[in-house]
Amino acid sequence: MTELTLQDAFRRAEAGMARAAELGVDMNIAIVDAGGHLLHFVRMDRAWLGSIDIALKKARTAVLFRMPTAVIGGLSQPGGPCYGIELTNDGLVSFGGGLPITDGEGRTIGAIGVSGGTVEQDTLIAEACLATP
Amino acid sequence: MTELTLQDAFRRAEAGMARAAELGVDMNIAIVDAGGHLLHFVRMDRAWLGSIDIALKKARTAVLFRMPTAVIGGLSQPGGPCYGIELTNDGLVSFGGGLPITDGEGRTIGAIGVSGGTVEQDTLIAEACLATP
Amino acid sequence: MTELTLQDAFRRAEAGMARAAELGVDMNIAIVDAGGHLLHFVRMDRAWLGSIDIALKKARTAVLFRMPTAVIGGLSQPGGPCYGIELTNDGLVSFGGGLPITDGEGRTIGAIGVSGGTVEQDTLIAEACLATP
Amino acid sequence: MTELTLQDAFRRAEAGMARAAELGVDMNIAIVDAGGHLLHFVRMDRAWLGSIDIALKKARTAVLFRMPTAVIGGLSQPGGPCYGIELTNDGLVSFGGGLPITDGEGRTIGAIGVSGGTVEQDTLIAEACLATP
Repeated sequence: MTELTLQDAFRRAEAGMARAAELGVDMNIAIVDAGGHLLHFVRMDRAWLGSIDIALKKARTAVLFRMPTAVIGGLSQPGGPCYGIELTNDGLVSFGGGLPITDGEGRTIGAIGVSGGTVEQDTLIAEACLATP
Repeated sequence: MTELTLQDAFRRAEAGMARAAELGVDMNIAIVDAGGHLLHFVRMDRAWLGSIDIALKKARTAVLFRMPTAVIGGLSQPGGPCYGIELTNDGLVSFGGGLPITDGEGRTIGAIGVSGGTVEQDTLIAEACLATP
Repeated sequence: MTELTLQDAFRRAEAGMARAAELGVDMNIAIVDAGGHLLHFVRMDRAWLGSIDIALKKARTAVLFRMPTAVIGGLSQPGGPCYGIELTNDGLVSFGGGLPITDGEGRTIGAIGVSGGTVEQDTLIAEACLATP
Repeated sequence: MTELTLQDAFRRAEAGMARAAELGVDMNIAIVDAGGHLLHFVRMDRAWLGSIDIALKKARTAVLFRMPTAVIGGLSQPGGPCYGIELTNDGLVSFGGGLPITDGEGRTIGAIGVSGGTVEQDTLIAEACLATP
């Protein structure tokens, strides 16, 4: 399995920060490896302090289930099939902004978690991190 | 950045307790600094014990996101964009009663968290703390 | 049973802050009631942030066992009868600076926890809080 | 008070990674702000996973007490004045590798935490991060 390297993470975080600057928002960006362990983290100056933990948890959530955090959020609402899943795994985040990183063969090798703006902004920036080759 | 001092906190808590006395309720009032660290806390005699933690968490929540706790509550309902956010950051409180304190240049230098009555009462008292120069 | 009031707590914290000023140290002072619930807290400007939690835990520890924290520390060393007791009760602090408050009939009605200097300084200031009638 | 910026943190982490490469070890480097909140984190490829949390906690410990983590370790041994202090503040690390960052006026504006090698190596690398202007 390809392993995510720190250099990969640098490149992805940089792409995310560039996109955040375009959007005029200050973001927290976390990148974790295939085991959910933190590889790289940046907090842009003036980003919300409360978004540090959310970015970290979005990345961990995305890798633990190998899916975007927003997909989990679709299942975890009251009455949904996974109501309350956020309480497991020492805390998950199930709204948008967490995306798994896959290798050329479709295997999840890590994930990105972004927090600091609206969920739409967070998602755009996570997508920018992901799009970087 | 201006730093919130203990004397500032004393003055704000006193204003809050005076307003609480007018309303005939017993309140917990917590004041934290820009990093969310506790600076001052008072529990009026006969205030609910369960409101201690709520006041502390409201203050921390308001500073971590630099917004009133009630605004977060508007986003975190089932189906809302930030459903479940209360589970992050070791526990947030997203109903009214937490307000950020800003300096003359609009920077968040701390926050107030009030709990002990209805959410309306908590908010009125937090506003009284905030209004004090 | 006499109950500790917020006014009592104010007087005791003030005495502690006056003593701290004499000693030239910046202290965190926490006062809890007979149930170990926070009643009053002050952090003097420039006091260590890490001492907030220690002051809170010293006060709680002193009331939970109705004895000075230093007495517990004498029992909790490696090889001692209560080795590891600090891991219970969501965390205790077993070095000096926590003192129970008793009423005229010797009943514990609350406790003081002080942290911010050496253990000797913390203890002197806790004693100043306690000595206040 | 001067605030630590992400650019400062990048420069310091880079200096630390360069020193780690010289020593032939793979390190985790965490940089926190004056409130102990994470600003920047890097894990060099092949660094121990267990050192992520240690680096984070060393940085937080150093800023919470405005002193090198090793100084706390000198006080927290069995029989020492602060035995058990590691259990406070949601977990501290009291061996070498955490250093506060001060501004020109001696105020603590953040801290560095390094983990991944021997304590001597961790400390050398934290010093390299600190030495960078």
